[in-house]
Amino acid sequence: MCRFLVYKGCPVLMADLLTRPNHSLIKQSYAAEWRSEPLNGDGFGVGWYAPEIDPVPCLFTSITPAWSNQNLRHLAEKVLAPCLFAHVRAASSGMLVSEVNCHPFQCGRWLWMHNGLIAGFNRIRRRLRESLTDSLYNFVQGTTDSEHAFAVFLNQLEDPAGAQTPDRLRRALVDTIAQLNAWGREADIREPSYYNFAVSDGETVIATRYVNDPACRPASLFFSAGAKFECREGMCRMLPGARHEHAVIVSSEPLTDVEEDWQVVPAGHLIEVTPELEVNVTALDGAT
Amino acid sequence: MCRFLVYKGCPVLMADLLTRPNHSLIKQSYAAEWRSEPLNGDGFGVGWYAPEIDPVPCLFTSITPAWSNQNLRHLAEKVLAPCLFAHVRAASSGMLVSEVNCHPFQCGRWLWMHNGLIAGFNRIRRRLRESLTDSLYNFVQGTTDSEHAFAVFLNQLEDPAGAQTPDRLRRALVDTIAQLNAWGREADIREPSYYNFAVSDGETVIATRYVNDPACRPASLFFSAGAKFECREGMCRMLPGARHEHAVIVSSEPLTDVEEDWQVVPAGHLIEVTPELEVNVTALDGAT
Amino acid sequence: MCRFLVYKGCPVLMADLLTRPNHSLIKQSYAAEWRSEPLNGDGFGVGWYAPEIDPVPCLFTSITPAWSNQNLRHLAEKVLAPCLFAHVRAASSGMLVSEVNCHPFQCGRWLWMHNGLIAGFNRIRRRLRESLTDSLYNFVQGTTDSEHAFAVFLNQLEDPAGAQTPDRLRRALVDTIAQLNAWGREADIREPSYYNFAVSDGETVIATRYVNDPACRPASLFFSAGAKFECREGMCRMLPGARHEHAVIVSSEPLTDVEEDWQVVPAGHLIEVTPELEVNVTALDGAT
Amino acid sequence: MCRFLVYKGCPVLMADLLTRPNHSLIKQSYAAEWRSEPLNGDGFGVGWYAPEIDPVPCLFTSITPAWSNQNLRHLAEKVLAPCLFAHVRAASSGMLVSEVNCHPFQCGRWLWMHNGLIAGFNRIRRRLRESLTDSLYNFVQGTTDSEHAFAVFLNQLEDPAGAQTPDRLRRALVDTIAQLNAWGREADIREPSYYNFAVSDGETVIATRYVNDPACRPASLFFSAGAKFECREGMCRMLPGARHEHAVIVSSEPLTDVEEDWQVVPAGHLIEVTPELEVNVTALDGAT
Repeated sequence: MCRFLVYKGCPVLMADLLTRPNHSLIKQSYAAEWRSEPLNGDGFGVGWYAPEIDPVPCLFTSITPAWSNQNLRHLAEKVLAPCLFAHVRAASSGMLVSEVNCHPFQCGRWLWMHNGLIAGFNRIRRRLRESLTDSLYNFVQGTTDSEHAFAVFLNQLEDPAGAQTPDRLRRALVDTIAQLNAWGREADIREPSYYNFAVSDGETVIATRYVNDPACRPASLFFSAGAKFECREGMCRMLPGARHEHAVIVSSEPLTDVEEDWQVVPAGHLIEVTPELEVNVTALDGAT
Repeated sequence: MCRFLVYKGCPVLMADLLTRPNHSLIKQSYAAEWRSEPLNGDGFGVGWYAPEIDPVPCLFTSITPAWSNQNLRHLAEKVLAPCLFAHVRAASSGMLVSEVNCHPFQCGRWLWMHNGLIAGFNRIRRRLRESLTDSLYNFVQGTTDSEHAFAVFLNQLEDPAGAQTPDRLRRALVDTIAQLNAWGREADIREPSYYNFAVSDGETVIATRYVNDPACRPASLFFSAGAKFECREGMCRMLPGARHEHAVIVSSEPLTDVEEDWQVVPAGHLIEVTPELEVNVTALDGAT
Repeated sequence: MCRFLVYKGCPVLMADLLTRPNHSLIKQSYAAEWRSEPLNGDGFGVGWYAPEIDPVPCLFTSITPAWSNQNLRHLAEKVLAPCLFAHVRAASSGMLVSEVNCHPFQCGRWLWMHNGLIAGFNRIRRRLRESLTDSLYNFVQGTTDSEHAFAVFLNQLEDPAGAQTPDRLRRALVDTIAQLNAWGREADIREPSYYNFAVSDGETVIATRYVNDPACRPASLFFSAGAKFECREGMCRMLPGARHEHAVIVSSEPLTDVEEDWQVVPAGHLIEVTPELEVNVTALDGAT
Repeated sequence: MCRFLVYKGCPVLMADLLTRPNHSLIKQSYAAEWRSEPLNGDGFGVGWYAPEIDPVPCLFTSITPAWSNQNLRHLAEKVLAPCLFAHVRAASSGMLVSEVNCHPFQCGRWLWMHNGLIAGFNRIRRRLRESLTDSLYNFVQGTTDSEHAFAVFLNQLEDPAGAQTPDRLRRALVDTIAQLNAWGREADIREPSYYNFAVSDGETVIATRYVNDPACRPASLFFSAGAKFECREGMCRMLPGARHEHAVIVSSEPLTDVEEDWQVVPAGHLIEVTPELEVNVTALDGAT
């Protein structure tokens, strides 16, 4: 299990998400509050879009903990981005801490990250890989369930390099989860799988909050939407905004103590931020 | 603040100290129990003597956390040593996580490590360095109070490369603390300094438990002595032994739940393990 | 292309192979002489057996260059081993420099490394993986042709965990190469593949010098055998010995300038060092 | 000895300096042409200004070689900067490869880097440090001559945090060299010292080409000035411009084969790029 956040809106300084809030993502790397184990010290990654340059996002990952990485601290003070992914990792038991296993994963214009785990992954890895196109088969660099799930997602898209509507993107993500569930049933895996995924092409962002066993609670997921997320004199706040929001954060945990700024994404739902910054929270139907 | 351990005795497998016990040092890197903050994830180091080769100890350090370092895990299963230092670091605020700041520090046949901090160190660093011989002045590679304290210790020895009696070693360590205290008073530093040091030349081991303000509690320190420290079928124990022990562990925290195996080093005391493996716990007189 | 060496014999100090000779492996990491490109700076690895502890070898790898790694320098001065693998890497174009891609690779008691490349590997990876048992399928951590070739080799063995005769080991290695060649033909790959492999179970060592196109020269491979390999006062030499040698080095390049100490392994041959330290150089028949 | 470059002008994509040109700085990290030893693989660093955010530059450094660092490769494709420093290091003998020893060094708004070495540095380090203010004394993190020279430079400025005229900056740099030379004479150091320094506050850039022994040649230094430095379809060029240039590169080696684009900075000279992008090459008087 891990912690992550996604931002989409008017350009935000990375530090305002990663280091300045009371419960910033870096704080969550050693003192997460919404999971039983507070530590997410097995490396980290950030990915962000610079649409003024090209549609391929930038990626910065490391196997050292987020809290002590000087390069991250420096970059956070200088990177302004309209769409940003960040992830602090708690490696599942037996999973290697290695650069190739750091989230977010990137392919062309896509970013992907995962908070959760695919139960019995070693028993479906083979079946999963068989389903991939040759190019996605060779794309996978590491051994995580998360990166393989990303390959399955890309495999659902007719043209991963082309433009996508939010609809098609949502459909591909739901199909990915349904496919993973089907392989799990085939392999007779009884343990629950946790699928909090986040994905973007730089235009649309979608994140899910889901566990495939109704008796279990999925990992936590919150969001905050408004006119602007701002840190001033040590205080970070989401300034209120109109219907078409200008700043949306989707995050494993609230970044601040201002309770009214944060809403829960309900279990079994997905949250979608459209290119126009509309926020839709809908039931994740068709995933089982 | 950090966690450390020293072993001296018949050769022990590194894994029996670092990975196998319930409260192994690697466990303490993410779940220390005897300090308010459980996390010691800012790098680690191990040093061990191979007297069959030469008197200079081997050193292995890294800025990644001990719990995820594959090289450490592999080495721990293969290194047998009669004298071993190991340290997991929680960097003091403002201190850089860098290889040069990892404990233990090594100079010739000496190993040194520190759990604690020298209050107001930036205000005495200059005075401290002035006192050093040219060669020790240039020896210091990093910026920690701990490495500088090591240089002060080496500076007390007439011939750091020569053989030392336990008496001279103890005297040099007490003088080091007294000297640090004197510089602190000169600089009018009021905050308490914590000096849990461990030092060895491969023959004698000495560790201190001390804070220079009587109103404060020093960091925890325990020891265990017996015939042999052994891990079998998932259970680690210190087997009881006679007066001249064959295995002594000095450790920030007990490595096992077997309470009778562990004794406290009292506040304001030092523990000395002689080349003949005699264990002496004595008051740290003359340090103030 | 890379550089590697294997040692088998009476315990040798790692530094006598890695740092002390004129053309030590660390020297070869920045100034190799027997390949057109002198640089092998994309990480390194060492593996060695400690049979007094258990049959599983120790592994130490890093993505930093061998020449500047302090931990390697320290370990080399203290590790004595009767069987040792060491490798400095020049990553093939497009291959990631990552810990999971560092040689030697280890599985149970086996060590494996590769100097060369499998042409068109992305076009046979899928076919190759399909052939693996489930457990070997999940064993592979990285993306190199070399680690996959190791999995193919282990897949040839009836019982990888059991004891092997040199004969069976040789047969498995020849079959591995034959299998890789067959897949290459199937995929219509015309470029030459270079298979200088080294493998050991700690008892027998086998290394090959081979390219699958008779018009090409395989990567260089030398060996030296004698009573003892010794470095004294800056001079390293293989002391002459009797028929049953006590020290054998197999190496991409001679470690010293003493020409009579080094023999070429002919193209298309393999060299085998038996548990009794007999050295056999034989034609690699049946590999095509 | 190392290789470095500085850019000042209209915002340039980092990749156009670091990865795309025939003789890009990353190429120089393994195949430098203007020094006898082609390898600069002991880590690297880049620093750049983002004046739209604040005057403090961003810093990204690593001890892995520039040629294999994925984070650098990703950042280079996304960072646009009006002023950029980049450095690939060949550590002087005995100098540690460590993050704290990577160039460029940064302090407040200042960036500093060095290609060269201060002869007999261990014999003047003490005298040098004594001259520093307390705050600069504690600023130094590593052990390089280069970082210490930076501290000496900052020590010459009345108000390092305040705005500087190019004149004052040039004066401080000349005084720094004169001071280092004076300490060298005091310590009776006879070997030549090489001082190719580059420094900037984000407004003015100054770089020197100097060795303190007239019988020796200083390290190479070139510059190119024009309207814009551009890479198109694999070809990089400095487009010609008017007197007030819009793009200036100062670099240890020409980045391209277009000879007319590059001019030599003569030995014993400094090159200054003013806030208005005027380029002045003047004799380094008063440094001896």
